[in-house]
Amino acid sequence: MDIVALFTSVEINIVVCAVLFSLYSILRKQPSNVNVYFGRRLESHGLLERFIPSSGWILKAWETSDKEILDTGSLDALVFVRILVFSIKVFSIATVICNVLLIPANYYGKKRVHRIIPLESLDVFTIENVKTGSILLWAHCFALYTITVAACTLLYFEHKSITNLKGLHINGSPPRPSDFTILVRSIPRSADESYSDTVNKFFSYYHASTYLSHQMIFKSENVQKLKELPAAFVFFKSRYAALMASHTLQTSNPMLWVTELAPEPRDVHWSNIGIKYRQIWIRRMGTFAGSTAFMIVFLFPVTFVQGLTQLDKLHKLFPFLTGILKKKYVIQLVTGYLPSVILYIFMRAVPPMMILLSTVEGSISRSGRKKNACMKVLFFTVWNVFFVNVFAGSVISHLSVFSSIKDMAGQLAKAVPSQATFFTTYILSSGWASLGFELVQIFPLLENLFQRFLLRVKDVTLVGISFPYHTEVPRVLLFGFLGFTCSILAPLMLPFLLIYFFLAYLVYRNQILNVYITKYDSGGQYWPIAHSTTVFSLLVAQLIALGVFGRKHSIVAFGFTIPLIIITLLFHQYCKHRFLPVFKSYSTQILVDLDRKDQDSGKMEEIYEQLRSAYIQPTLVSQAASSPSEQAAPSSSESTSPQDDKHSSEISKDVISVV
Amino acid sequence: MDIVALFTSVEINIVVCAVLFSLYSILRKQPSNVNVYFGRRLESHGLLERFIPSSGWILKAWETSDKEILDTGSLDALVFVRILVFSIKVFSIATVICNVLLIPANYYGKKRVHRIIPLESLDVFTIENVKTGSILLWAHCFALYTITVAACTLLYFEHKSITNLKGLHINGSPPRPSDFTILVRSIPRSADESYSDTVNKFFSYYHASTYLSHQMIFKSENVQKLKELPAAFVFFKSRYAALMASHTLQTSNPMLWVTELAPEPRDVHWSNIGIKYRQIWIRRMGTFAGSTAFMIVFLFPVTFVQGLTQLDKLHKLFPFLTGILKKKYVIQLVTGYLPSVILYIFMRAVPPMMILLSTVEGSISRSGRKKNACMKVLFFTVWNVFFVNVFAGSVISHLSVFSSIKDMAGQLAKAVPSQATFFTTYILSSGWASLGFELVQIFPLLENLFQRFLLRVKDVTLVGISFPYHTEVPRVLLFGFLGFTCSILAPLMLPFLLIYFFLAYLVYRNQILNVYITKYDSGGQYWPIAHSTTVFSLLVAQLIALGVFGRKHSIVAFGFTIPLIIITLLFHQYCKHRFLPVFKSYSTQILVDLDRKDQDSGKMEEIYEQLRSAYIQPTLVSQAASSPSEQAAPSSSESTSPQDDKHSSEISKDVISVV
Repeated sequence: MDIVALFTSVEINIVVCAVLFSLYSILRKQPSNVNVYFGRRLESHGLLERFIPSSGWILKAWETSDKEILDTGSLDALVFVRILVFSIKVFSIATVICNVLLIPANYYGKKRVHRIIPLESLDVFTIENVKTGSILLWAHCFALYTITVAACTLLYFEHKSITNLKGLHINGSPPRPSDFTILVRSIPRSADESYSDTVNKFFSYYHASTYLSHQMIFKSENVQKLKELPAAFVFFKSRYAALMASHTLQTSNPMLWVTELAPEPRDVHWSNIGIKYRQIWIRRMGTFAGSTAFMIVFLFPVTFVQGLTQLDKLHKLFPFLTGILKKKYVIQLVTGYLPSVILYIFMRAVPPMMILLSTVEGSISRSGRKKNACMKVLFFTVWNVFFVNVFAGSVISHLSVFSSIKDMAGQLAKAVPSQATFFTTYILSSGWASLGFELVQIFPLLENLFQRFLLRVKDVTLVGISFPYHTEVPRVLLFGFLGFTCSILAPLMLPFLLIYFFLAYLVYRNQILNVYITKYDSGGQYWPIAHSTTVFSLLVAQLIALGVFGRKHSIVAFGFTIPLIIITLLFHQYCKHRFLPVFKSYSTQILVDLDRKDQDSGKMEEIYEQLRSAYIQPTLVSQAASSPSEQAAPSSSESTSPQDDKHSSEISKDVISVV
Repeated sequence: MDIVALFTSVEINIVVCAVLFSLYSILRKQPSNVNVYFGRRLESHGLLERFIPSSGWILKAWETSDKEILDTGSLDALVFVRILVFSIKVFSIATVICNVLLIPANYYGKKRVHRIIPLESLDVFTIENVKTGSILLWAHCFALYTITVAACTLLYFEHKSITNLKGLHINGSPPRPSDFTILVRSIPRSADESYSDTVNKFFSYYHASTYLSHQMIFKSENVQKLKELPAAFVFFKSRYAALMASHTLQTSNPMLWVTELAPEPRDVHWSNIGIKYRQIWIRRMGTFAGSTAFMIVFLFPVTFVQGLTQLDKLHKLFPFLTGILKKKYVIQLVTGYLPSVILYIFMRAVPPMMILLSTVEGSISRSGRKKNACMKVLFFTVWNVFFVNVFAGSVISHLSVFSSIKDMAGQLAKAVPSQATFFTTYILSSGWASLGFELVQIFPLLENLFQRFLLRVKDVTLVGISFPYHTEVPRVLLFGFLGFTCSILAPLMLPFLLIYFFLAYLVYRNQILNVYITKYDSGGQYWPIAHSTTVFSLLVAQLIALGVFGRKHSIVAFGFTIPLIIITLLFHQYCKHRFLPVFKSYSTQILVDLDRKDQDSGKMEEIYEQLRSAYIQPTLVSQAASSPSEQAAPSSSESTSPQDDKHSSEISKDVISVV
């Protein structure tokens, strides 16, 4: 691929983005689309004056403080924004150092006759153009050091500030029922008493001073008779006591009386909460097998896509296309744009599949399910977009399978630079363009238009959706991964990546402020994922660099890269000790301080009162209530808990009447 | 190697064992050796009538019940005996099925002219003799299924009974100070108060209802001034409270106020307890690097040893030996016996090295250090004795390094059967003979004789040693590993292995009852190690079988082995969920029951009183006391805590005067 082909792709994506961004600025001003683009405002008593046409959404997104993001979108949203900020910072440094230092080094790395720049092959700007044993490889080693040190330093401070914010957030928020509640599963069956009596007896004896009350969980399928499940929410008198009870083994059989902290009431995944604990490990292994199988099946489209980027192979495979493939613009389109679009479309199928697998796995909370799906999608994308692409591309171009995996670094070193241009176009199509689609919210928009103009529904109520962390976190992290691994090999990619992160920063902040509703929150659990992925990216980048330096016979650069790998590993270990426990559990200090505060202010009784009605099973409510309310409850997998529905439907009536 | 060479090795080892066993039965009757062979009796007020000559130690070792083992040698000793019992059971089944079914199948596996049995090569009895595509491979697949099912079933019931015994043991033993105590490290420095005040303030505020008192830890090097360390033992009013405090994060900085349950007073590793917590992770990574380096350096003797088993290669490497190597007996000695003796001698250096590494790693308890060293030695032996031997042997005989590690199973399948005879001789020399040396206790015996007859010391006091789990557990598990992996490939090994396990059962029970002193106990922590190693052995055996079936083109046997691997993995996952948590932490039920019992019987005050003097730092005692008592304190790494010394020296004086 030459510069012109790359710019074909850039042009197409700029046009796509420009169209979508303009479309958004028009569509958002239409009163009929209020429920599409201001889902959040609906909830927070929207006022008409805020909907007066204005082109300043970018400014608004830019100006909003972290505090506001935290208040409107909760900790997860803030963590997501911080991931973007971290990416912008680190890739600004990388862009400067790589473009100033490495592009000239690569361009003049070998004695050759250069063509005029627009017709120059992109390979001239990659490390492949540096001749073996060249002293210029020192520049690459230096850039690698700079990027690693910058990334680790920024990660450390980001980690520290998020940990602090997490503490402040807990202290600042109102008492949460989930802090006082544990979920008990696998209650042993007793011949002469009900599960409820067994729970009462066990906790009043073994947690005598701290046990408050409990609430059984019922099987939801049976409408008529409530046949009890061996699971219950158990309430404690203090946060600290609940944490303690959730942490320890209750009896010497770990498969009985399984305890864990309860999710927040809105976050409970009711249909999963009745799953027998004994099944969990089988489900976990089953879904593991399922996701692995899915990953293997997915190799076919990826390999096909890879075929498209290599024109000469395409001629061989599909001789009848030769005619079409001779037109210059078609060639640029097919090699520069089409592959990444196809890959993008296929990738759309992955997140719903992973959400399904995570549901089957038996997650008891919606946030947990989403986090779980996020990790699955992340593994999937990094594996399929990066490794498989790299290797599949290499297999197709050499028409041979690797004889060995032992020199993985060497293989990667050979394959990555040649695939770097593909990744650049992937950033353009899957990154830039997807931000445009994110803004326009194509599916809710269509649903709204369909209901309003075809079905003539007057008060269109769209189900407010929560932020799709399981698709967006992996996407951003994947781009980070591509950035780190390709930075010193093909630095031309970095400016495009940096633009992506800037746009993403504006777009996602706007979406968090206006579109998505915060139904539940994992408490910043996406940060450790981002941290590990970044460290992993750095290590892969270093290993590839090691391979490249080895292949180019630059022994000193090779030798200097080894301590860098060790330092990165040590840094990761340190952060694991220093920060990770905070994301796993609350500290005694925080909980006891909160308990004391509530006790001293006499709020405790009020909290105990709230606990009684906090966890109401939705099916029980709908059975108790009359049929209209049952119909009102949304039946999608994103359905909310009863209080939620009542709350939002009240507000939406208010707002819609105003509109 | 042929049958005769094997029997040369068998003969030598039978002679060695017979000599050592007889020597033991004579030496143990000599009054002057009482302190060598009855170290434990010394502690438990030995009576002279018990030392009247008798040849019935085997009977005694056989008859002793598990309960007695538990009472004299604690849970760790019992776990060790149960590992042996498990091995005997499973390899009895394996020996029967493999010898009845597989030896005939192997012997007649190929049409060939058989020589008379004594001159027959041992390879005739291995799976290598079965021809490609033979239907006889079904027998091997069936044997593999039987062994796997037997091993898993036995493991499950063994796991269950050990878990029960652990519960009973806790309930039956007197109150232990360690249950009420946590160790706090990384106490933050305060400008205006001492560490002691900081601890007091923190725990009286955050653990107000359960905190009892605390005791600072002092730097032991400084004899004159006590400059406090940021570490303390904190005592709680109940076992449950101590467990709770040890489990949770104290503040939002996980590097401060680091808590964990304290080891028993006798088990505390005093010189490590002052190590700064911040260093721990660096030390851990350092020792990891150290052990890896040690493993790599160790490759040289192993490769050399392997060279010895392959006579033709030896001729090539050392042409000047050709003369000697022509004598028949020398050949049998060199190929059949010498390699395993050399390996055994080298292996003697490993456990002290690993204990040293575990000390440097910063283990706070002696039992933890030993368990840690046990795992290191286990990795080391399995890697060096099995994998390196297999591959090194293969490298030497083919004079080529493997081009790829991707068909590991195939490589193992090729190499293991040819190495099986070496492993058989290894069992004979390192197994059988080492049991004889274990009985005779060569080093303490020499020390005793030296002191008594050369230095003319009258009251020889040998430092009572505790059971060397870190050498014996890995040895037994390694033999199990060899047994599983070679059983279906070279079944001739199994009878020798079974004899080893029988002898080991008798010898170790005798040693537990008579020789070793129980200074500390890890609470059965060796069982999970044994469990994982057994499952790992099964998996390796199945993978090798897979490779062999693949190489022999037995597709059905190959296909049937895959579900077996999956079943084994599922079994392991299940056991991890079902049993492992019990080995990690005590359950609420057990602790609360014990607390209640002590409260109701009014024993609690007495326990609190005991706690005050339970953890006395030995250096403080020796500074307070006069110099003679300081000299009396043993300075070896196995040094005991002060109470211990006092106790044992009193008793030893008693007993020695009787003798």
